[in-house]
Amino acid sequence: MEEPRILDSITSPADLKVLTNEELGILAQEIRDQIIDTTSRTGGHVASSLGAVEIVLAAHSVLNAPKDKLIFDVGHQAYAHKLVTGRAAQFDTLRSYGGISGFPRPSESAYDVHPSGHASDSLSVATGLAKARLLKGTDEKVVALIGDAAMAGGMAFEALNYMGTEQLPLVIILNDNEMSISRNVGALMRHLGDIRATSHYRDAREALQERMESGGALASAVLNFGKNVKESMKQFVIPQSMLFEQLGIVCTAPIDGHDIGALKETLSMLLAMDAPALMHVVTRKGEGFGPAMADPERFHGVGPYDPVTGEDKGKAASSTAPAAAQSVGAVPTYTEVFGEALMREAAADDDVVAITAAMASGTGLKRFAAAYPDRFVDVGIAETQAVGMASGLAIGGKKPVVAIYSTFLQRAFDQVVVDCALANMNVVFALDRAGVVGGDGPTHHGIYDIAYLRMIPHIRMLAPSDEAELVNALHTALALEGPVAVRYPRGKGEGVPLPEQLELLEEGRSRVAYESGSLIEGVAPDITLLAFGRMVSSAVEAAQRAEADGKTVRVVDMRWVKPLDREAIAEAARSQCILTIEEGIRAGGAGEAVLEVLSELNASTPTRVLAIPDQLVLQGDTEVLLHALGLDAEGIYQALCF
Amino acid sequence: MEEPRILDSITSPADLKVLTNEELGILAQEIRDQIIDTTSRTGGHVASSLGAVEIVLAAHSVLNAPKDKLIFDVGHQAYAHKLVTGRAAQFDTLRSYGGISGFPRPSESAYDVHPSGHASDSLSVATGLAKARLLKGTDEKVVALIGDAAMAGGMAFEALNYMGTEQLPLVIILNDNEMSISRNVGALMRHLGDIRATSHYRDAREALQERMESGGALASAVLNFGKNVKESMKQFVIPQSMLFEQLGIVCTAPIDGHDIGALKETLSMLLAMDAPALMHVVTRKGEGFGPAMADPERFHGVGPYDPVTGEDKGKAASSTAPAAAQSVGAVPTYTEVFGEALMREAAADDDVVAITAAMASGTGLKRFAAAYPDRFVDVGIAETQAVGMASGLAIGGKKPVVAIYSTFLQRAFDQVVVDCALANMNVVFALDRAGVVGGDGPTHHGIYDIAYLRMIPHIRMLAPSDEAELVNALHTALALEGPVAVRYPRGKGEGVPLPEQLELLEEGRSRVAYESGSLIEGVAPDITLLAFGRMVSSAVEAAQRAEADGKTVRVVDMRWVKPLDREAIAEAARSQCILTIEEGIRAGGAGEAVLEVLSELNASTPTRVLAIPDQLVLQGDTEVLLHALGLDAEGIYQALCF
Repeated sequence: MEEPRILDSITSPADLKVLTNEELGILAQEIRDQIIDTTSRTGGHVASSLGAVEIVLAAHSVLNAPKDKLIFDVGHQAYAHKLVTGRAAQFDTLRSYGGISGFPRPSESAYDVHPSGHASDSLSVATGLAKARLLKGTDEKVVALIGDAAMAGGMAFEALNYMGTEQLPLVIILNDNEMSISRNVGALMRHLGDIRATSHYRDAREALQERMESGGALASAVLNFGKNVKESMKQFVIPQSMLFEQLGIVCTAPIDGHDIGALKETLSMLLAMDAPALMHVVTRKGEGFGPAMADPERFHGVGPYDPVTGEDKGKAASSTAPAAAQSVGAVPTYTEVFGEALMREAAADDDVVAITAAMASGTGLKRFAAAYPDRFVDVGIAETQAVGMASGLAIGGKKPVVAIYSTFLQRAFDQVVVDCALANMNVVFALDRAGVVGGDGPTHHGIYDIAYLRMIPHIRMLAPSDEAELVNALHTALALEGPVAVRYPRGKGEGVPLPEQLELLEEGRSRVAYESGSLIEGVAPDITLLAFGRMVSSAVEAAQRAEADGKTVRVVDMRWVKPLDREAIAEAARSQCILTIEEGIRAGGAGEAVLEVLSELNASTPTRVLAIPDQLVLQGDTEVLLHALGLDAEGIYQALCF
Repeated sequence: MEEPRILDSITSPADLKVLTNEELGILAQEIRDQIIDTTSRTGGHVASSLGAVEIVLAAHSVLNAPKDKLIFDVGHQAYAHKLVTGRAAQFDTLRSYGGISGFPRPSESAYDVHPSGHASDSLSVATGLAKARLLKGTDEKVVALIGDAAMAGGMAFEALNYMGTEQLPLVIILNDNEMSISRNVGALMRHLGDIRATSHYRDAREALQERMESGGALASAVLNFGKNVKESMKQFVIPQSMLFEQLGIVCTAPIDGHDIGALKETLSMLLAMDAPALMHVVTRKGEGFGPAMADPERFHGVGPYDPVTGEDKGKAASSTAPAAAQSVGAVPTYTEVFGEALMREAAADDDVVAITAAMASGTGLKRFAAAYPDRFVDVGIAETQAVGMASGLAIGGKKPVVAIYSTFLQRAFDQVVVDCALANMNVVFALDRAGVVGGDGPTHHGIYDIAYLRMIPHIRMLAPSDEAELVNALHTALALEGPVAVRYPRGKGEGVPLPEQLELLEEGRSRVAYESGSLIEGVAPDITLLAFGRMVSSAVEAAQRAEADGKTVRVVDMRWVKPLDREAIAEAARSQCILTIEEGIRAGGAGEAVLEVLSELNASTPTRVLAIPDQLVLQGDTEVLLHALGLDAEGIYQALCF
């Protein structure tokens, strides 16, 4: 029989307040064991969550949530938070269909303040909460937990700038784990490194510790003397004026992020100041789990693994899982195929430059980075810089390829419009994770790109239907003048052979993917399916079923979202009915674009648009989600009977 | 007879190199006279352009453009650049249809590197150009000119962070004019202010001057000794370590931005370093023109004015012109009506909070700011912070209204999706300048919002057809749960009386704006026009013309872009034909949404979508542009004959 766990007695954060620091330490270990136990089966964001256990316990010991607000940035580090806020019993359903989310979700718990998922937004949300508190005259505390990599995002800087000016009462916990998802990027990181490295580090930290140990007296001094004490607080910090201090934010020396006592005391003190303050906490990603500490990058987002050795158990469960982890058997992932195809293009053309925003692994660029270090650019979690820089590279005669998840390019929408499209720059957008992404859920599905890119003048967009098409689509995109997007899904390809000879795809020209054998030449089929991207193979399957019902069917792989193949649409209008199928949001999608062409052609062929409806798409296995959305062969077949 | 001008002898920047500093000073005055002469007739961005004359002359004297790259941020300050790069003769066509653009445009001149218009992107573009140079092994110089307000944008920070790490060879000229468009915002601004105020300012500056006067020797020392000299360069800068220095960017002490000699020498020295450097230049907005110096905010973007007194001559010519400048006679602008309507809402509901991103005047919030200073938030040029903070305010129980130009909300597209829409936050987006904006041209037209917002789950969107509708639309938006956008155009309203009693508009319900008198009850009209926003009045005019041709016509003011009135569309399907009309891009627009509803209804009524085609919309008078786009009564009438 197992020993009773402290974890099982925790029903809400209030229960943490009665625990000693030693007991909290034991609880931290239990939480780590639980995280490893669960995620070794479900996959998930392991390294970040393991690293932040003590921070979460300290914060919830000091705060009174849900009245007080603890805001997670991205939310990769929120598992401990879930476990101590009444969700331990459901924790095994993590990231599954109908289960609990891998990220904070307000719809799931009153303790989840905000739908985290995209980096660097927590500080802006915190400024809003702090401002709301001032307006209401209430006294709830506002704390944002943000990693060093996310701190380098422009949105975080805008929030720092604002809170410093307005002196908003909130505390930032900077979880400095000395690495972003893939590697340290950016001068800000170096600045943090300098602070850690300085000889003043220890002195300052010891001084801070000493003062804190004098406890209550200082706390009340802080409360009573306000601004003057803020000044004396500053004495504790690193003598070299810090970036944050210059923005008007009091900043502590680096604190050991695995020392619960120190974390609690420092946070209490900063909260008592009721002014913008930053607690600089140093943690180790993967803390407490050897394999994750040894390879935190792999354990950032990982699929099921062996809970002892950490070895991969098969399919990846995270949108940020390294490409290598997704390969099963001989069929490569789209990500892998893209990475290799780009290597091939780069070998043939010195002008090709790859750009990533802290997702070298996720977008399949690891080998490219090693082979072409000069032509590989990692800007950190800074999508606007990635796209703006691509514009400059294009002006300078280079052929930049921005490799980015569909959902994260949303961050640089305006830069795509103004910096790339208006002046028709030669920039290629390689949109990985386009479509439904699985366990990461609503914040990560790449389902808006067709709509948000199609509207932009000069943009062209390809949606390859398999991995061989992807190789040629990339080749075509690089050969065209002007901005071109190539969207492809997360996960494995169709298992088709890759082209030995690269092919330039004719602009705006579709291809027939399938046609009923019984179809007489020159006679239109009963039904024409106009399918985009990986929907093509399901459409073919559905077509074959309809054929068995006695219908003649043609499936067109549209290839291009923009420009659309108007001839193919005109030909489809000769059918009795048309079905368009895409893995993207309906409003503004490719199906509507087809309707628009049909209206211009004055065609009245009954046409049905199969796409993602106007509602949140939840998390879960991609196959399960596509089925629920009616975007598998079964759903397409059902839609045909109209 | 007038004296011959130096300006008339300048055909390219190369001609500047033979001029003495004294002659450049005379040229600066001639340029100012020309800017005032032209803009007093055309309107334009006067204050910024006057302030940056010496910077532009100094930069072009030192650089060899177009080989060397001078990148303008936003481009408000580029008039002097246009005048010395071969466009003096066309300068009087500034901002007019077919004339030269008010912003740098690569399609207009080889000297215009990049399509400027949205703030804070110049540094990212510069990093791309610098990286391209390194890859090519060439030696062109890269210089970006950016204002202090734009420097506070997150995108600029991301670029600083990157260039500091990579030590890219480029020079930033920070044009610190001690104000953003409306007022100083942000801790960064205070930081710059601190630098200016410090007692070290003079000392440091004098030391820098002295060193520079020793001239050629130092320049060669810089070239020969590289890194060590960089270190000694640092001795010149402000002793308090600066934010920029901490990011790895060498930074000068503040330099007088109207001293051409100092500007040339400092820039030459920094360029010789071939490393990331920032030249901190202090200028006065409106320099050399009394009225602009006295009221630089009004002269940021202004319509025609008296070239002596600076008095307003009538209609505004700039999208950023203060609301007050747009009022002619009794008919208020939409901006003014919005501002007053929000005051009314705020008086009735303490929870209403207004947020602007450095556009208090432009969005009509000046009176609100004065009346409700606590409930007025200006985050500076930081749209992502504006929307992220709105999310936090909504979580905190407030009703934030983000008042923003349609084109600038593009900057925060992802924040609308993730931070506001996914969790159904109560945030209202008041989208000013939705539609065609006039002289500012392609970077500023607000023609994408229907498409980029309609696709997002939970979002609702109203397009009021006149200023009375706007008042009720805002009232409705604030009463609804979840995110709601209200879009309205730049310029004057329709002249209708404003509602005394506020009305809640029924969600997704249109209204009949006009109907042929000859229409028999229960009988469908020949033609139904489904019109959105200010297209309604033109649609009515077109309908009346069609009526004279013997047709029966109904004009529906759709009111809601989302949700659409499906009943009204079903009713329209009974007509012989349908025309949809919107002032927005066709791809993904409201017309396509109507087509989608018709396809769901299995309706085969011939339907035509009138919208903005997939191409750049140029600058010019709004009336001229709408006519060219077929979006005036004439165009709608022509479209009816199908």
